[in-house]
Amino acid sequence: MTTLALSPDAAATVLAEQQEAYADLRARNLTLDLTRGKPSAEQLDLSDGLFALPAPGTVASENGVDVRNYGGLDGLVELRRIFAELLDVPVEQLLAGGNGSLTLMHDTLAFATLFGVPGGERPWGREETVTFLCPSPGYDRHFAVCEALGIRMVPIPMTPDGPDAEAAAALVADDPSIKGMWVVPTYANPDGSVVTTEVARRLVSMPTAAPDFRILWDNAYAVHHLTDDEVVSADALGLAAEAGHADRVLMYASTSKITFPGAGVSFLAASPANLAWYKKHLAAQSIGPDKVNHLRHAQFFGDAEGVRAHMRKHRDVIAPKFAAVEQILTERLGGTGVARWTTPKGGYFVSLDVVPGTAARVVALAKDAGIALTPAGSTYPYGQDPVDGNIRLAPTLPPLDEVEVAMDGVATCVLLAAAEAATGSLPS
Amino acid sequence: MTTLALSPDAAATVLAEQQEAYADLRARNLTLDLTRGKPSAEQLDLSDGLFALPAPGTVASENGVDVRNYGGLDGLVELRRIFAELLDVPVEQLLAGGNGSLTLMHDTLAFATLFGVPGGERPWGREETVTFLCPSPGYDRHFAVCEALGIRMVPIPMTPDGPDAEAAAALVADDPSIKGMWVVPTYANPDGSVVTTEVARRLVSMPTAAPDFRILWDNAYAVHHLTDDEVVSADALGLAAEAGHADRVLMYASTSKITFPGAGVSFLAASPANLAWYKKHLAAQSIGPDKVNHLRHAQFFGDAEGVRAHMRKHRDVIAPKFAAVEQILTERLGGTGVARWTTPKGGYFVSLDVVPGTAARVVALAKDAGIALTPAGSTYPYGQDPVDGNIRLAPTLPPLDEVEVAMDGVATCVLLAAAEAATGSLPS
Repeated sequence: MTTLALSPDAAATVLAEQQEAYADLRARNLTLDLTRGKPSAEQLDLSDGLFALPAPGTVASENGVDVRNYGGLDGLVELRRIFAELLDVPVEQLLAGGNGSLTLMHDTLAFATLFGVPGGERPWGREETVTFLCPSPGYDRHFAVCEALGIRMVPIPMTPDGPDAEAAAALVADDPSIKGMWVVPTYANPDGSVVTTEVARRLVSMPTAAPDFRILWDNAYAVHHLTDDEVVSADALGLAAEAGHADRVLMYASTSKITFPGAGVSFLAASPANLAWYKKHLAAQSIGPDKVNHLRHAQFFGDAEGVRAHMRKHRDVIAPKFAAVEQILTERLGGTGVARWTTPKGGYFVSLDVVPGTAARVVALAKDAGIALTPAGSTYPYGQDPVDGNIRLAPTLPPLDEVEVAMDGVATCVLLAAAEAATGSLPS
Repeated sequence: MTTLALSPDAAATVLAEQQEAYADLRARNLTLDLTRGKPSAEQLDLSDGLFALPAPGTVASENGVDVRNYGGLDGLVELRRIFAELLDVPVEQLLAGGNGSLTLMHDTLAFATLFGVPGGERPWGREETVTFLCPSPGYDRHFAVCEALGIRMVPIPMTPDGPDAEAAAALVADDPSIKGMWVVPTYANPDGSVVTTEVARRLVSMPTAAPDFRILWDNAYAVHHLTDDEVVSADALGLAAEAGHADRVLMYASTSKITFPGAGVSFLAASPANLAWYKKHLAAQSIGPDKVNHLRHAQFFGDAEGVRAHMRKHRDVIAPKFAAVEQILTERLGGTGVARWTTPKGGYFVSLDVVPGTAARVVALAKDAGIALTPAGSTYPYGQDPVDGNIRLAPTLPPLDEVEVAMDGVATCVLLAAAEAATGSLPS
């Protein structure tokens, strides 16, 4: 890819133009927020039917368990069956948990640190160093979990087909400290890439120096389509079993961006050995998941098709916002050579690359103009983008008109910072 | 206390009588369950109003937060305020969490193991040995958490005023490996004792060799009264602060036995330093608690008096079951010298002491007669009751008539085992 930069010839003119545009922008005293991948109120309204569920008189699951009482670690089978179909995993290998898959991911690594994992020789906490490969740009909360648990992070590049599997394979072959990696297989946060079967097969087959290497396969956006091309990422659990590494992959998902973030249901799909391992440790930690909320969700969706239909309503709300981002970036930055961005077919983010060395400046300029963006660097381990070039845009929360205003402002900031860089006037 | 035993003179007669009674009991082919402290369906029905909440149209908390979206680790203030009053703690020091306080307790000790606690020198996992004092009989899931995390358990006696504080003080003074202890301050599981201010003051004031000693103060039954004498346990957090050991106590509670076990809300009250410490680690683990369920509960109760009124309805359902236990044990075992039991003013359990060496036999006899009791020993660390004398009775789940039948059967088993012991015919 060509390096992003403003042509020196144009620099002075653009600088003057954009300084004026930026002054106008600031004068508008905006308060806009594109920081987090949060559903909008209009999206949340789509799930308000949950408030009237479980339906009066139904307190028993299909196998007769009173969902209002203690009992069971696996979660309600009627809900697990729906998501087993959507995630393409056997229902026996799917656990339905609490209100967020981040907890399942954190606790997987916490249990690994405290107790070790099947096939491992000791608790990870007893190792000199534990390293994770972090495809970057990636999800900041994945990186925060690693940092919290003292897991060293090594970034590897992303490709349009998912993480750079060759880069991963080269690293894991010789370094036994590399115990795992993160993957967001469908509409990755933030670049929207989808893991192909070829990439998945390479990742689950590659020889690893660590005998207990794990891939945390965060399928957060499995059903979060933005187009008619409803992309399906690779069947990682199946491919891993085929490759003789059934225990390598643990898959996570949730309804956070399907129903209500924080009041939804999380899922963990894994090999029988991994699931037994997780549940053994979960048994000491939990009285079991919220089965009333499981039943509530099962009744709300009815079946997998119910989830798909529900997600099409989400798409109707948010696809126009993504289209606005695309349109404004194209109009304002197309052909300028100062920016490159993704056009995702699903998920919650647009990944925007700007002139190296200017991402933090763009975010600061936007902030001063009342437009809050995700902090520059947050898509990289330790918050350190090596080229200071990537910005994550999250257009779902604000109303469409605010997205348009915000994106136009962002374009101004991108151009202004690029001009500052080209003219040597970038603040240090 | 006198040692429980059947007088040798009576042994042969009782043996013959109870063998006959036991044969009759078995012939009834019962299937009764007194194993766990689970609310009955009739109790659960009391909270079915939750199914229609939050009320349509109310999705915002009192401070304007949309409870359906991401955000916030503390939990909804309107719910925290209600339970701050009930638990007698400052609302700023109370966190409302997920669906079970067991998770908060487990994670407190997991975070301590991984990261250490304020005032400590290193993660507990880096210590040679970490020891917890376990007042016994106690709660099996507390002991299971310790066992899971490799924390050595040392039992100490219970008294009618809570744990034996002098025994605790003597042990913690010299042994820096003792990092903490469990306390169930109100209507303790299983003996129903209530911690007095005197005992609490001793526990929070006693010098400890470990600089980072913690008391996990599991106030699970704070509002679970069975009589008009609504006992209040000591203000542990206040007393600890007064004693200059503000960080010593972490208090836990939940609505598991107020609304729905597994679909309720948990609480953690602690010093500012402990709360900041917990939330720091929680931030990596959680997207925040289920605020919809918080709002649901806040609307259901209205205020602290709403909780108190609700608990009186629970009392109406379960107090007759406890009365039946008391009546039948008195009728069948009173004056025999073979049993001693508690008459709790609240909580979920009756603690039954039988002739030393016969508790496991009583449980086995009951099981063979179709009456499931909590396994003998489960009220002690590692499941080992040193005298094999304690049995935990949980009378809340079955209907009243079943409780009566079960207790009569248990009495038969207690007498039979006592007679076997006195005649040397106890199976080995």
